[in-house]
Amino acid sequence: MSTAKKLCALGSHRVLEPLGVLPQVAHRLDATPAAHANEILCDVEALNIDSASFRQIVEASDGDVERVRAHVLALVAERGKHHNPVTGSGGMFVGRVREIGAALAARSDLRPGDRIASLVSLTLTPLRIDAIERIDLATGRIWIRGTAVLFETGPYARLPDDLPDDVALAVLDVAGAPAQVRRLAEPGETVAVLGADGKSGILSCVAARARVGPSGRVVGFGPDPDTAGARLLVEAGYVDAFVRADARDVFAILAELPEALPDLADVTVNCVNVPGTELSSILMTKDHGTVYFFSMSTSFTAAALGAEGVAKDVTMIVGNGYAKDHAATALQTLRDHPPLLRYFLAKYGATAVAVTPVSAQV
Amino acid sequence: MSTAKKLCALGSHRVLEPLGVLPQVAHRLDATPAAHANEILCDVEALNIDSASFRQIVEASDGDVERVRAHVLALVAERGKHHNPVTGSGGMFVGRVREIGAALAARSDLRPGDRIASLVSLTLTPLRIDAIERIDLATGRIWIRGTAVLFETGPYARLPDDLPDDVALAVLDVAGAPAQVRRLAEPGETVAVLGADGKSGILSCVAARARVGPSGRVVGFGPDPDTAGARLLVEAGYVDAFVRADARDVFAILAELPEALPDLADVTVNCVNVPGTELSSILMTKDHGTVYFFSMSTSFTAAALGAEGVAKDVTMIVGNGYAKDHAATALQTLRDHPPLLRYFLAKYGATAVAVTPVSAQV
Repeated sequence: MSTAKKLCALGSHRVLEPLGVLPQVAHRLDATPAAHANEILCDVEALNIDSASFRQIVEASDGDVERVRAHVLALVAERGKHHNPVTGSGGMFVGRVREIGAALAARSDLRPGDRIASLVSLTLTPLRIDAIERIDLATGRIWIRGTAVLFETGPYARLPDDLPDDVALAVLDVAGAPAQVRRLAEPGETVAVLGADGKSGILSCVAARARVGPSGRVVGFGPDPDTAGARLLVEAGYVDAFVRADARDVFAILAELPEALPDLADVTVNCVNVPGTELSSILMTKDHGTVYFFSMSTSFTAAALGAEGVAKDVTMIVGNGYAKDHAATALQTLRDHPPLLRYFLAKYGATAVAVTPVSAQV
Repeated sequence: MSTAKKLCALGSHRVLEPLGVLPQVAHRLDATPAAHANEILCDVEALNIDSASFRQIVEASDGDVERVRAHVLALVAERGKHHNPVTGSGGMFVGRVREIGAALAARSDLRPGDRIASLVSLTLTPLRIDAIERIDLATGRIWIRGTAVLFETGPYARLPDDLPDDVALAVLDVAGAPAQVRRLAEPGETVAVLGADGKSGILSCVAARARVGPSGRVVGFGPDPDTAGARLLVEAGYVDAFVRADARDVFAILAELPEALPDLADVTVNCVNVPGTELSSILMTKDHGTVYFFSMSTSFTAAALGAEGVAKDVTMIVGNGYAKDHAATALQTLRDHPPLLRYFLAKYGATAVAVTPVSAQV
């Protein structure tokens, strides 16, 4: 693709509105399906919508798959990216490399035809949807025909041969969480995980369990101890206890602490995909402990002022979706833990709940 | 004050709407000026409005002091607290203890008549304004007649005898920033401070300078190198360099990095009181470095997805207004650094720009 625009490593040459900002901040991107010299153009097979974003879209559509489809099509047609304006979040894609820009061809380890997953948020990825083929309301997967652009600074992962795509994608989507948990927790410590039975929560529990060792303690929290995820955590021993409590209800959480976390947590990991759980996370953490907010539903000011308001000297960390080698490590974790692998295969690898195929009107 | 309501250490008994939440989350608090058994009632002398909040209110009022006054009165009358719904932030107050609840009287180190500053956000402090006496548009100080309530978990600081109140208040308001900088930076490291010439920025530079030592490097960033704050930083040697750049303009920041931070920063401290500076902060930080977001204008998702989008493995920390002994340490820092003390005395201790006194209509 020839262009007179100056190419930017961060992709600002794709910004249409407002000019002079970066792709994530932009309202609208140019999603034209052709690779500039410093870009990689991919044929997209599926989107994995961020949990907070997908939940918001499904709720706004009253759970109606046709309305979810129309919502996503309109959103992407309007913005040139899947960037949910309500939640501020996006998701990721899986696809096949179609074209590598001239300036990248020599130094990229990718070749046309390679199958990859983007590890960069859809909130800054130029995306064009030609058709939505299937939507899985249970997992937030959307199978499409379309194209996406990776910038030269955008991370990606080659899809592994030994795991089904959809399982790999599900894991890669949240690979930043267990990577950070491994760094934050120390042997012998107590780790609490809110939203423990979701995808990022389960991987965080497994990472915490491995890190704190037999002298440490991992406690999961969630509103329903009978989900498949909660049962996995308890039965495989990834948690010492699973506590039934809704993290939005501070008083319910406080009532559980004397028994579940008598000395509070050294590290609390928040993986809850609804707003309003900052203070629960803070109150269950020891003074000088760490709260790791992986949830995109976190409010910065609620966290900052919440800790101050209760005079709690905790370090609060913003979840970073990227960490060195996080993709390879997360996939290896799956291979190393047969019960975890079986769970992911059953939940994400089986043919997902089929929705009537729908064609797109672009 | 007698009441049938169950008293809560976190103050939920003061919540009017919606019921069942904590004071910070609540839309409206009961600011009745009487102390429940677990509360401290104070006569308020002045409010120090959070910088992001005050800026928003002044802009919404076109800089007109009468409109700022009406705005603040209406806000506090409506919510029973100064909780700016646009920025989500508040500020703090200074006042005199009027009444200590029966359950606290024995164990509190306060007595009626003591002069204190609240170290808890106004976003969760029941506040009643009887009159606004003066507003200083330059500093965000508002002198009032009114009352506020401290809960038993709410931190406060006794005002020191050797410093003017308004200087102490200005320092206490941002005492969390230098406390955290001291913990995050190591001797010999490079620290970058965005918004370096504001109150929290200056204290962060001083803390960084002391911590990194002569082999380390402190670089301040701000749009104007001619402010009194910027000149103080350079002349007193609190920074090695002050770089003129607007943190909102990622491209301007990137252009400065080869000279100002050739190896990038080990620790970046964001003290900018306008939105849209997350990515600049991330890009100026080394891989495996730390970004400390003290600014209340920070967007959680912009930070989280911004780092992921540029594949930057940095630890991002949410500014916590509270840290153990932060108040005493910040005040001592002022005493230990004569140029800093002179600056604070001149800026906050002199008679502030007098605004026509206004009376409140409640």
